[in-house]
Amino acid sequence: MYGCESWTLKNAKRRKIDAFELWCWRRLLRVPWTARRSNQSILKEVDHFGFNIDRTFKQRYLIADNYWKEDGGSVLFYTGNEGDIIWFCNNTGFMWDIAEEMKAMLVFAEHRYYGESLPFGADSFSDSRHLNFLTTEQALADFAKLIKYLKRTIPGARNQPVIALGGSYGGMLAAWFRMKYPHLVVGALASSAPIWQFNDLVPCDVFMKIVTTDFSQSGPNCSESIRRSWDAINRLAKKGPGLRWLSEALHLCTPLTKLQDVQHLKDWIAETWVNLAMVDYPYESNFLQPLPAWPVKVVCQYFKYSNVPDTLLLRNIFQALNVYYNYSGQAKCLNVSETATSSLGVQGWSYQACTEMVMPTCSDGVDDMFEPHSWNMKEYSDDCFKQWGVRPRPSWIPTMYGGKNISSHTNIIFSNGELDPWSGGGVTKDITDTLLAIVIPNGAHHLDLRASNALDPVSVQLTRSLEVKYMKQWVTDFYVRLRKMN
Amino acid sequence: MYGCESWTLKNAKRRKIDAFELWCWRRLLRVPWTARRSNQSILKEVDHFGFNIDRTFKQRYLIADNYWKEDGGSVLFYTGNEGDIIWFCNNTGFMWDIAEEMKAMLVFAEHRYYGESLPFGADSFSDSRHLNFLTTEQALADFAKLIKYLKRTIPGARNQPVIALGGSYGGMLAAWFRMKYPHLVVGALASSAPIWQFNDLVPCDVFMKIVTTDFSQSGPNCSESIRRSWDAINRLAKKGPGLRWLSEALHLCTPLTKLQDVQHLKDWIAETWVNLAMVDYPYESNFLQPLPAWPVKVVCQYFKYSNVPDTLLLRNIFQALNVYYNYSGQAKCLNVSETATSSLGVQGWSYQACTEMVMPTCSDGVDDMFEPHSWNMKEYSDDCFKQWGVRPRPSWIPTMYGGKNISSHTNIIFSNGELDPWSGGGVTKDITDTLLAIVIPNGAHHLDLRASNALDPVSVQLTRSLEVKYMKQWVTDFYVRLRKMN
Repeated sequence: MYGCESWTLKNAKRRKIDAFELWCWRRLLRVPWTARRSNQSILKEVDHFGFNIDRTFKQRYLIADNYWKEDGGSVLFYTGNEGDIIWFCNNTGFMWDIAEEMKAMLVFAEHRYYGESLPFGADSFSDSRHLNFLTTEQALADFAKLIKYLKRTIPGARNQPVIALGGSYGGMLAAWFRMKYPHLVVGALASSAPIWQFNDLVPCDVFMKIVTTDFSQSGPNCSESIRRSWDAINRLAKKGPGLRWLSEALHLCTPLTKLQDVQHLKDWIAETWVNLAMVDYPYESNFLQPLPAWPVKVVCQYFKYSNVPDTLLLRNIFQALNVYYNYSGQAKCLNVSETATSSLGVQGWSYQACTEMVMPTCSDGVDDMFEPHSWNMKEYSDDCFKQWGVRPRPSWIPTMYGGKNISSHTNIIFSNGELDPWSGGGVTKDITDTLLAIVIPNGAHHLDLRASNALDPVSVQLTRSLEVKYMKQWVTDFYVRLRKMN
Repeated sequence: MYGCESWTLKNAKRRKIDAFELWCWRRLLRVPWTARRSNQSILKEVDHFGFNIDRTFKQRYLIADNYWKEDGGSVLFYTGNEGDIIWFCNNTGFMWDIAEEMKAMLVFAEHRYYGESLPFGADSFSDSRHLNFLTTEQALADFAKLIKYLKRTIPGARNQPVIALGGSYGGMLAAWFRMKYPHLVVGALASSAPIWQFNDLVPCDVFMKIVTTDFSQSGPNCSESIRRSWDAINRLAKKGPGLRWLSEALHLCTPLTKLQDVQHLKDWIAETWVNLAMVDYPYESNFLQPLPAWPVKVVCQYFKYSNVPDTLLLRNIFQALNVYYNYSGQAKCLNVSETATSSLGVQGWSYQACTEMVMPTCSDGVDDMFEPHSWNMKEYSDDCFKQWGVRPRPSWIPTMYGGKNISSHTNIIFSNGELDPWSGGGVTKDITDTLLAIVIPNGAHHLDLRASNALDPVSVQLTRSLEVKYMKQWVTDFYVRLRKMN
């Protein structure tokens, strides 16, 4: 549907795209299309904010320009997030869908420390010294330098407007990029970007409440059954052969052997429900996992009946988990150490969550369907110190990026899926007439950024139209300013 | 006139100013007023942009609130530059003069690596590893955290508008602070801030041309005589006893012994003319040195006659230098290794000039009065590497702070003295109706920030009125927004 099969780089030579690592890709095979791959590269500073370490690294980016027009065109720039950029590219069909209408060159920039953009190669995650350059500020500086480089080297791109787009953490980066580098991007589409899920900007329980609402609305007794399941697991685990029974009932690849394993099991199950809420898309999809349409509804079919015995409830839990982990029907057992695609960089994100990206969540088991869990910053910090040798600075992101006081910025669209738990930390109301919020009923995590689909709800179709309208306005405004200057 | 003698901290205890190092000062004695000095302090991260080094340092700041009003007041925040903050405080009388009218608390924040705010104490300048955290980004982050801290801890300050003010490099920081942290300051007064003296944003010869114009306009034959002096020095130096003669004629503390010394001598003299142009104030002052009113005019009196013999020209050069280095009449000889007050942090600035703050200058000896000197980035970079073990990144500042493309920002006043060579790299034309430029005829380097003086030209009086008008407007707008929100 998109990828190098239908998108080709024209005149790569003429444009002297001879630096940075130039990749193209096939959607299905996901291999670099070597015929289009440049064998030269310009290198990025590992540390933009210090001069003592004079080391560079290769930042990967993807570029496609089939529909790009030098005359009146634009550049749509995806601010890559915590994973392989090819994976994000393949899950951001919206950019491909609007490329022709926007006369746009598409650029997908990989985030440092993810995918193949590793500042210290295999050593990148070895210790806090090597991880020291994994911050949002460094990532934004990478994007800034890449845009300047593209404008300098691609004829016709110099005087074109660039728009930042991103989803989830990439959406935060898109918004922050517009805030910090408005000279490089005329606007930003920040999809499902929880820029306020920090410190005390929003209540920590909002996230789990939204997950719970999704399940409540997707079938009778659904969230109630899940809320009951935690105690059911506890009760079963305490019985004589309970651990073995649970291991078998849930078809675990690695049987539970001690009581601590039970907490890990519950955490894994809870994370599964969270992920399901995030990717509750209206059609078959494969983002975090291959899934059926409206997967939460599918899951909830197993929880129709109230007050079933513990053992039946747990067998139903297995069926529900199986929807998420075994939609293909190929899995022989369930692996409690995996919850999402391996395209996500778990090590990198774990470090980021332990430094800048501290996003408090909590639950009370009453207003949500999870076990009560308070937010304990001290414990969190100690865990981070144990794991990475660093301590988080939870108030830094609001200090750096403005928290709720961002009204002096312009041209940012914050789109949020109403089903998406991250919408709780997102901007869901207009701040000014150029800082716009869109809430998408029946929308999950950055649904608007996904490729158009026949099963899309009208809400997301309207959202995308609105987004294109605003982006076109930014482009028009840019060219008006440009003409005035000349 | 200002300082602790007339400004006292009221209710320091009530306001719990118990953290950071709290200083007050006497203008004349320039000693910390220990009675007001808090013995507690909160510490600043040495590295805001990395988590591996978990070290903090004490940032010094000065605070005065005699005229501050909780009701409808404001905070005027001086973004300290490359020197001791007490020195800048004592040369920024404008803030003291308008404190009552602005109902303002005054804060002067010291820049890291200057004055007493040394992240590694005596080792701060020992090598590039210790200097690694001396950047504009780190300095702005220090200011951001200080403002957040003051708002958190001083009752009544939380919901008050803060305005950033600064001169010269401090003016750049004020402007950049508004650009990057608009959530923390409602506007900025950037006085004599050459934010465009980078890369190729302005021609490198503009600086020396302005110096030359100052001298041309300050007396007949003045710039011509100086232009002639370089060859005169060269001719004299080549004669048998030339070095000794020159050393005696110029009353040098350390006699010239070899031909290389002559280049150093000429550089020192050239820098003296540059400094004189910068501080060509209309009244007796003591900024870089104690000086008479209109010092360039005084200097030019020694160059009235054209075509004087080399020896007489050099004796006149001595008289002229003597105006700058010996206005007090106490100096026994002239020291070619000093050009300005020791309150400026020369080591720190040398490092900054070798990393981010690369500000190209050049001269051609035709359109200016200096020896021809082209800008050689390669040579500059090699010298930096020799001195500090680092290489400059000359395009970084425009990438980070937008270069000439800053029109999306708001509420910055760029004021420039027309006599000031730095005005060549400054913003001298309005960019939008909230990014305003003021050029002050007969004004030298940030004259507007100095205390009101009976000898001030009308131009600077009008400038200050205008600045206050705009700042008051920002304050009013802030309170209007605040009321709307509540």
